[in-house]
Amino acid sequence: MKKDYTIGDYLLDRLAQIGVQHVFGVPGDYNLMFLDEVLKHKELEWIGNCNELNAAYAADGYARLNGIGAVMTTFGVGELSAVNGIAGSYAEHVPVVKVTGAPTTKVMKEGAYVHHTLGDGNFHRFSTMFREVTCAQTILTVENASQEIDRVLLACLTEKKPVHIVLPIDVYNKPANKPKKQLLDEEMKSNEKAMDEMLTNLLMKINKAKKPVILADYEVYRYKAEKELMHFAEKSGFPLATLSMGKGVFDETHPQFIGVYNGDLSDSYIKQRIDESDCIISVGVKLTDSITGGFSQGFSEENVIHLHPLSVEGEGEKYAPLTMKDTLNTLAHHVKKREREEMDIISTTSRQQQPFEATDEKLTQTRFFERLSYFIKEDDVLLADQGTSFFGAATMPLKKGGTFIGQPLWGSIGYTLPAVLGSQLADKERRNILLIGDGSFQLTAQELSTIIYQKIKPIIFLINNDGYTVERAIHGENKSYNDIVMWDYEKLPSIFGPKEASETFKVQTEQELDDMLNKIEHHDKLVFAEIKMNRDDKPELLTELSKRFSSQNS
Amino acid sequence: MKKDYTIGDYLLDRLAQIGVQHVFGVPGDYNLMFLDEVLKHKELEWIGNCNELNAAYAADGYARLNGIGAVMTTFGVGELSAVNGIAGSYAEHVPVVKVTGAPTTKVMKEGAYVHHTLGDGNFHRFSTMFREVTCAQTILTVENASQEIDRVLLACLTEKKPVHIVLPIDVYNKPANKPKKQLLDEEMKSNEKAMDEMLTNLLMKINKAKKPVILADYEVYRYKAEKELMHFAEKSGFPLATLSMGKGVFDETHPQFIGVYNGDLSDSYIKQRIDESDCIISVGVKLTDSITGGFSQGFSEENVIHLHPLSVEGEGEKYAPLTMKDTLNTLAHHVKKREREEMDIISTTSRQQQPFEATDEKLTQTRFFERLSYFIKEDDVLLADQGTSFFGAATMPLKKGGTFIGQPLWGSIGYTLPAVLGSQLADKERRNILLIGDGSFQLTAQELSTIIYQKIKPIIFLINNDGYTVERAIHGENKSYNDIVMWDYEKLPSIFGPKEASETFKVQTEQELDDMLNKIEHHDKLVFAEIKMNRDDKPELLTELSKRFSSQNS
Repeated sequence: MKKDYTIGDYLLDRLAQIGVQHVFGVPGDYNLMFLDEVLKHKELEWIGNCNELNAAYAADGYARLNGIGAVMTTFGVGELSAVNGIAGSYAEHVPVVKVTGAPTTKVMKEGAYVHHTLGDGNFHRFSTMFREVTCAQTILTVENASQEIDRVLLACLTEKKPVHIVLPIDVYNKPANKPKKQLLDEEMKSNEKAMDEMLTNLLMKINKAKKPVILADYEVYRYKAEKELMHFAEKSGFPLATLSMGKGVFDETHPQFIGVYNGDLSDSYIKQRIDESDCIISVGVKLTDSITGGFSQGFSEENVIHLHPLSVEGEGEKYAPLTMKDTLNTLAHHVKKREREEMDIISTTSRQQQPFEATDEKLTQTRFFERLSYFIKEDDVLLADQGTSFFGAATMPLKKGGTFIGQPLWGSIGYTLPAVLGSQLADKERRNILLIGDGSFQLTAQELSTIIYQKIKPIIFLINNDGYTVERAIHGENKSYNDIVMWDYEKLPSIFGPKEASETFKVQTEQELDDMLNKIEHHDKLVFAEIKMNRDDKPELLTELSKRFSSQNS
Repeated sequence: MKKDYTIGDYLLDRLAQIGVQHVFGVPGDYNLMFLDEVLKHKELEWIGNCNELNAAYAADGYARLNGIGAVMTTFGVGELSAVNGIAGSYAEHVPVVKVTGAPTTKVMKEGAYVHHTLGDGNFHRFSTMFREVTCAQTILTVENASQEIDRVLLACLTEKKPVHIVLPIDVYNKPANKPKKQLLDEEMKSNEKAMDEMLTNLLMKINKAKKPVILADYEVYRYKAEKELMHFAEKSGFPLATLSMGKGVFDETHPQFIGVYNGDLSDSYIKQRIDESDCIISVGVKLTDSITGGFSQGFSEENVIHLHPLSVEGEGEKYAPLTMKDTLNTLAHHVKKREREEMDIISTTSRQQQPFEATDEKLTQTRFFERLSYFIKEDDVLLADQGTSFFGAATMPLKKGGTFIGQPLWGSIGYTLPAVLGSQLADKERRNILLIGDGSFQLTAQELSTIIYQKIKPIIFLINNDGYTVERAIHGENKSYNDIVMWDYEKLPSIFGPKEASETFKVQTEQELDDMLNKIEHHDKLVFAEIKMNRDDKPELLTELSKRFSSQNS
């Protein structure tokens, strides 16, 4: 007998349609039966995580590469464990669908004192909490399910933020009609009149500018406007910088790419090009403290034209609806092309780079990133945890097609280890390289076992500098609260899975680093390398930024 | 120069006054400077955890033994990671003070786009979320701090539930006056008139009852009324049972103790004594699905007299304010004493127990708990994680002075590993024994390193039955979502700390278990023992309860 089409089928079909192929999560008795449907679904694969926070991080890392992600947990205990990960997706505009398996409609209606509740008969407390960190929420019923699923998934796709779906365990197996059309019938459209007005009022400013520059950030990536950004950059001839959060939205080997802007902590050349510009075309930019040297940007707002995902702002006016893609294409069509000499661009690639010659000296942060920059290849996905890893990686150039994943706004340490599980599953062909400190690693360490279990092969550099170096830099350099327990990290992969599944290394000197990187150039296993560095050694950018944070806190 | 007295001093002095000696947490830049004060405080010790959820669990375990606990994290990322632990404290009435270090008052007022926020200028989202899982909340200012600290700490002590204190990082170092009097000037008082009315209306029912029985639960422990309960039990001569959540509130070797009530999943004798009683004196009881065999209690509400923490309910009337202690003492004074013969009690200790004779057979759940019951000593603290561990331990008798820690209502797996860090630190002299399954252990495994680092010596039994056995019992016995990665558990302690800090074991047969338990009878190190059991073997109570949960979910 053919199985009837159900609400569960509808939800899973919709998830598959919008691009989900892997579903992360942890089973619990309020989602178990629905997970049977996930296992059965031809286009979905269930990825069990060690805990729910890790599952949410993994879904976030997956969504950053794949465009959309999903995580399923049980009620109460499961969803609350995941909530910090979902908040991170909200802060950094990552579309993640959070599905919570809930008690039956009947149990909830009766307000029964069942497990995984606060024992007060109130079943809405947790969905109330999720309202603060998701852009749309729903509690599915047998009546509303199809409509509500479509509504929240559309919000997720349009706003690029997480959504929360509560699925009572007696609802998933009730009848539904198969969806007849695709969820997104058409892409968001721009308005012609608004576009004309925008051109009339802003094009002149752009074409007359003496020192125009493009500043791009991560929303370009979320709204998939990289091609249009490249088109506008090449048609205009303007130099282009990104913020560290948006690292990778533009080919960093391109002759117009001048580097990563970090407020007054930027390299002097980038700082000058941005701060002294009389017309900054800002594309998908959001200025936060960790990517601006603590709000130290030197340009003035009146020189900025903002291209937002669905609007343009400049000279005190807002023009909407205008999609980022359409605006970039229109500007590309009308902009006056500047010549190479006129723009006088010193691209990052043209700046002198010393060849790396390894010594037997103990490895320093500076030398580590110098050497690593030669290891980075085209199409690499580079993940860096908040801390020394992020601020070191932020200034290291990517190659063509490279992607950078960090979390500078939300800044939840430990995020990237589960995130690399997600990003590597999203595309098994690309090489994923993770940089994570020992302090961060300890928060989510167990997810290494899922990485091994899934037989994926990222390269993991664990930077062991004995504690919370980023916190030491801000305050309490030698205080005990910044100490952590020293683990024998190198042995962990053989505990979390078969010894032969990974290659492990322990590296202390420049020569050892060099040897290892040469050896793993073409790796066919998971690589887990412990890189020992001095406790008080940190990337220059972090040293300076930490001082700003410290004074921001007083 | 003498340091001026500050708001930070005030908060920490108050915490110390109400009994906090250890503060759990993770540092972050919005709490770092305040942590200096924690380190300096003479009566407080800082315990750094691997992550914030573990810190919240540890503070909960600590508070269950110590009467009050505290956990400190940074804003956003830190507090949201901890929130599931705090929700557990709320569900199970555990007084935990959650302190969140926040950005400066100025940054918050300006709505600046700083890190650890959602980048929307709204700094109240997370404290809004905490309203759902705490009984009192406050955001401290230089004006309100002393008053607000007192208000929320009083609520925490009175309601035995967690509270949330937001401490902006520019507030802790501002002036405050030293507190002049103790926080709790006097204990909550009962009302004489209400007590008289209660006696008038209910005493006769008690004294006339043919089959009276006492049913006690965990609130007796939270409101420290164990002595009064014993007094009433002995003055009345009534048989007494507890619920599994309240296991340990009454001496389980006492001749009036008849066992743990589990609805119709109870032993037939206990079931009959409770369900057929014409007068149940219910002391601090809350009936939830996991401790009643899925609401299968067989007694009728009209036969119950409820002694709540601050009121009495019976025959359709409520009498308040009456404290549990006062009510128990008053009833003890007036109750008609029943004689041993009249009550005809078969105490748990009088029931025949077979001596354990170890064989070379593979260990089963039943045999494991049979043998373990001989290992349990007076004053042991027994912790059991939700799953096979809890339902096995729930039916195993404690010795005099023993304490049982589980989480049957909230049921967050992984809770007990960090909880034993807390409970063992709360009293280093008592022997702490933890039972935890492999699935649960993986959620919070890293906290084992903090346990080793703190040089405490609990006995940890890791029951390795290859996956989520409790979930398999409910649904999907052989489904892949109930599988977990097989770790080489036994080696973990040597990775998380010095090898000589712990004794590790791997046990598969009855004989091996017997040998190990004999060996560790007088242990002077942390014991970490992996107990291998069959995947489909589970305590009888769990087997039955799982069927109820499964039908509750359909």
